[in-house]
Amino acid sequence: MADDAADASATLEGDPPDDQGKDRPGDAADATPDGGDDPSTADEIRWAAFDVLVDRGFDAFTTQAVADAAGVSQSLVHYYYDTKEDLVFSMFTNGLDHLTGEVRERADSDDPRERLLELARYMLRTPEGEAFEDTVEFSRMLLEIESQAPYDDRLREAVEYDSDFLEEFVADAVREGIESGQFRAVDPEPFAVTFVAAIRSGQNRRAIFADDERVRPVLDGVAAMVDDYLGEGGA
Amino acid sequence: MADDAADASATLEGDPPDDQGKDRPGDAADATPDGGDDPSTADEIRWAAFDVLVDRGFDAFTTQAVADAAGVSQSLVHYYYDTKEDLVFSMFTNGLDHLTGEVRERADSDDPRERLLELARYMLRTPEGEAFEDTVEFSRMLLEIESQAPYDDRLREAVEYDSDFLEEFVADAVREGIESGQFRAVDPEPFAVTFVAAIRSGQNRRAIFADDERVRPVLDGVAAMVDDYLGEGGA
Repeated sequence: MADDAADASATLEGDPPDDQGKDRPGDAADATPDGGDDPSTADEIRWAAFDVLVDRGFDAFTTQAVADAAGVSQSLVHYYYDTKEDLVFSMFTNGLDHLTGEVRERADSDDPRERLLELARYMLRTPEGEAFEDTVEFSRMLLEIESQAPYDDRLREAVEYDSDFLEEFVADAVREGIESGQFRAVDPEPFAVTFVAAIRSGQNRRAIFADDERVRPVLDGVAAMVDDYLGEGGA
Repeated sequence: MADDAADASATLEGDPPDDQGKDRPGDAADATPDGGDDPSTADEIRWAAFDVLVDRGFDAFTTQAVADAAGVSQSLVHYYYDTKEDLVFSMFTNGLDHLTGEVRERADSDDPRERLLELARYMLRTPEGEAFEDTVEFSRMLLEIESQAPYDDRLREAVEYDSDFLEEFVADAVREGIESGQFRAVDPEPFAVTFVAAIRSGQNRRAIFADDERVRPVLDGVAAMVDDYLGEGGA
């Protein structure tokens, strides 16, 4: 069951290698082969960082706390991630890459109405049990890091890239549905921005309340935007 | 020109009194008479805390940094605010109280359509010059503190109270417009939740990008929700 937090919630077993003395790889932090059995030390540190961030918030997030959670030295953390900001950036872009990859894979219907609903259902899903905790934690990571974006150019650019991807995804579907006569002729860009904004805010509610009852009304509302507003009662 | 950040952006002049030795007032932090000439020391500390938070983010937010910014001792900060969390909570609830007060005052048209537009225009305004900076800073404070809400029961309750107020405000207007035949018969609650969610996310965009061009499409989109969706082309 693939999930947007699956990557980050993998458990670590055994001691990560103490490879502080070896030559520094060009971009070890991003060098994870997909599906490899042995996560790199950089990955393990990033996963530990995720756990520290979503369990305790930014207030408790230090490279020492991450080192403790990963069972490595603080200097090993800094070997892979020069600064705390580098580690946060790596965590954020890995998470966003995973999210956009999942959206591309899951929201791929030929029907633009269905594609918009698939996007909303995926982004605002509230599965049962542990999988819900995973989605809550992933939403927390996004909210935490977005709150740092005003003070960090790279994070702001990553937020912008992600928003632009999602808004273009929605605007494309809206244009397609208007051309086919399935949707009424709204202005695609403001619709897309508002649709994505509502979804993002719904994810923040999931992060804050960890309660599916605070999330479902947002999903109902964005579904109504598709069926009652764009579709004028259903295509 | 009243503004939701006016309170917080007041400049401090002169040394705040060193009243560490006096009897501790019951709730000095909330004891500011409206419009009084002399802000209390608790207010001055809270304003300094606001400046530290919106200039540098939570990562740099310590009671020592606040004390330095306010020109007082760290122990005086703790005299008024037992913990950093108390200071953050006070900042947040003061900000939200101001915001809900302004909404009540500004979005008071008898026409439900106009009331929804007034709400959206106020929440997503992008005035010129320094006033824009004030709105950006206020949005940053909200985003920063929301990102702490998953880890703090009082902050979460304050977010919930604020969301419920805004959603009820919107749902009431929608119900009124449906009853009068001005709006189509949407389900008021999901509409309200989505409308408020889009606005909140638009405020986060203002916080992150400090760019009116990232905010206006959200305002255009929520205005279209009122006129094209609810009003089906305008009442």
